[in-house]
Amino acid sequence: MYNHTTADYKCPICLGNAGIENEDTLLKQDDLIYKDDLVSVYINSFWIDTAKGHIIVVPNEHYENLYDLPINVGYRIFEVSQRMAKTMKLAYKCDGITTRQNNEPAGNQHALHFHLHIFPRYVGDSFNINLTKKSILSEPKERSEYSTKLKLELPKVK
Amino acid sequence: MYNHTTADYKCPICLGNAGIENEDTLLKQDDLIYKDDLVSVYINSFWIDTAKGHIIVVPNEHYENLYDLPINVGYRIFEVSQRMAKTMKLAYKCDGITTRQNNEPAGNQHALHFHLHIFPRYVGDSFNINLTKKSILSEPKERSEYSTKLKLELPKVK
Repeated sequence: MYNHTTADYKCPICLGNAGIENEDTLLKQDDLIYKDDLVSVYINSFWIDTAKGHIIVVPNEHYENLYDLPINVGYRIFEVSQRMAKTMKLAYKCDGITTRQNNEPAGNQHALHFHLHIFPRYVGDSFNINLTKKSILSEPKERSEYSTKLKLELPKVK
Repeated sequence: MYNHTTADYKCPICLGNAGIENEDTLLKQDDLIYKDDLVSVYINSFWIDTAKGHIIVVPNEHYENLYDLPINVGYRIFEVSQRMAKTMKLAYKCDGITTRQNNEPAGNQHALHFHLHIFPRYVGDSFNINLTKKSILSEPKERSEYSTKLKLELPKVK
């Protein structure tokens, strides 16, 4: 649903999941932390300066985004992300955890294979500073306009 | 686990879930989009300028963060977040979706009750620009240091 890959897309995450290291993927097999029958966890190749060693949880099969993910895979993503967040707390001694998951190129999804980012957070890091600065308190009547739109479409979506 | 509330914490999300509107919560009952036996969805009170009408998915019971969430609630959070992402695509005609979930004050968690943010994304919005600018390609050997730490702690965490 709302897919953006072409038939010749060389999926860097599928390559990693298949145990392949070549010029089409940045993933190294050494980055793999965990694998089960449905999902895998890797250290992400790109890092945010204040959140070194952040990880991604990915399905083993190719699903492009959140809209496409089968429910049993989504359940497992939750279980493993919770376990990895707790593991990161122990391993990195971090002070918090932020998860993020981008969908579609307009949403800054670069690898077009579902991946949930899990970032370690530290007291005073500037990770979210730009979003926090742009955060504004809305008026209840402004919110009504949006809740009305969502409630109208919700019955159409399973 | 890793909790930060005190006994007298007036949880703004619990108040919303109980149908209460008062000075201790910004949530209005008009912000409620969806409710089932385990989770509720609201239009968030604070908005990011480029992502108006963003929503939060919350458990009906009080669980502070990702570490604490019971598995059946986590499963339902996944199901509802997927459905809401698809609903937002229809209702807002947005070009992408980003989810984010913060844990602990150091992770910029303000309301100390688990909430998953779901943001509409649009072509050319500047939502993630600060993080994208700070993103750097790591070296495989740097990543090994972190994957080793995680693999050491993982067996201790269920």
